[in-house]
Amino acid sequence: MSLVRVHNFSISLDGFGAGEGQTLETPFGHAGSRLMEWAFETRTFREMGLHGTTAGSRGVDEAFASQWGNGVGVEIMGRNKFGPQRGPWQDEEWKGWWGDNPVFHTPVVVLTHHPRPVLEMEGGTTFHFVDADPAAALEQARALADGGDVRIGGGAATVRQFLEADLIDHLHVVVVPIILGRGERLWDGLEGLEERFDIEATPSPSGVVHMVFSRKAAPQD
Amino acid sequence: MSLVRVHNFSISLDGFGAGEGQTLETPFGHAGSRLMEWAFETRTFREMGLHGTTAGSRGVDEAFASQWGNGVGVEIMGRNKFGPQRGPWQDEEWKGWWGDNPVFHTPVVVLTHHPRPVLEMEGGTTFHFVDADPAAALEQARALADGGDVRIGGGAATVRQFLEADLIDHLHVVVVPIILGRGERLWDGLEGLEERFDIEATPSPSGVVHMVFSRKAAPQD
Repeated sequence: MSLVRVHNFSISLDGFGAGEGQTLETPFGHAGSRLMEWAFETRTFREMGLHGTTAGSRGVDEAFASQWGNGVGVEIMGRNKFGPQRGPWQDEEWKGWWGDNPVFHTPVVVLTHHPRPVLEMEGGTTFHFVDADPAAALEQARALADGGDVRIGGGAATVRQFLEADLIDHLHVVVVPIILGRGERLWDGLEGLEERFDIEATPSPSGVVHMVFSRKAAPQD
Repeated sequence: MSLVRVHNFSISLDGFGAGEGQTLETPFGHAGSRLMEWAFETRTFREMGLHGTTAGSRGVDEAFASQWGNGVGVEIMGRNKFGPQRGPWQDEEWKGWWGDNPVFHTPVVVLTHHPRPVLEMEGGTTFHFVDADPAAALEQARALADGGDVRIGGGAATVRQFLEADLIDHLHVVVVPIILGRGERLWDGLEGLEERFDIEATPSPSGVVHMVFSRKAAPQD
């Protein structure tokens, strides 16, 4: 069975995966770019073409950042990651934050209560708008993944729902040393989560701490 | 001026410094001993005589734990750290969790709205019960410290109040990889705290991450 993975999901020290007040100009609300600055400095993110043109770092942040695409055949994201709109689509002009040739290059399942037609982009990205619970969405995503792994792309509510449903095998969380105070919490409702995972922490000279949660192996008979 | 320091203050990944439901049997509520297990294994805590009799570890956890007493002349603690009682004292029999010869060996200021007489214990610990805001309590504590530093001993509400009042110079927080889900949060109301501190993270083989917040030097003229 393919794995379900989360990569580069950044939270503040107080556990927020996004700030308050997401808008077209501020996808992370009042957090601004602070949660993702560590990533924007890496070679992997520089090569996405959205975050500056210098070569990017190759240290521990890059070692983690670079894993996000390996073996992944599909992403599932929440509608709030796809765009700032809420409620029924006013039009279908919005095609995500990522331009005509999005960084994904795979099918992407966008969870929304307001489906719209499949959106084919350049470079292999196709957005599929799906109204389903995590388990059903995962089944649809696997059917699109051509045998590859499934990446849960966020935001915080989406990652939390998949953790609650115990559908995540690999969770890479990046703790950024800022106190946001308000926004969307990752850990709410997940008491005891650590019992299902082995957890390893690695600090970076950039100041962030990479935490990897790996699902514990099932007991052998 | 002497420093105001916090040592060995442990929080869960979701930011709780204690669980729900503190009682005489469970000082950390439903968290049990999970927040402090890393510390109980160290030489410093073993030598307090409360946490087993073997020699204790001497690695990174011990390196941090051992700093708690160096140069400290007084501790300030909240009443919830002193005992499980709430409201007016029913009697004055309760003398803390730490036996006749408490581990502090200095004056200890206990913050409470219900003062009682000074309590002299064996080994140099004296409990002073003080009804004051953080700044006034700090002034009283310094008068007792004989030139030594002031340690803020917790719990979470007490540390938070001293951080809000910008009275802390050195904050050692230990992030324990568990999700408590409920209890007393350390970081609430502290948005932007990181701007006042340099922050360094060090992981331990025990699984915890030591985070040290050092007050930034004031700009030179």
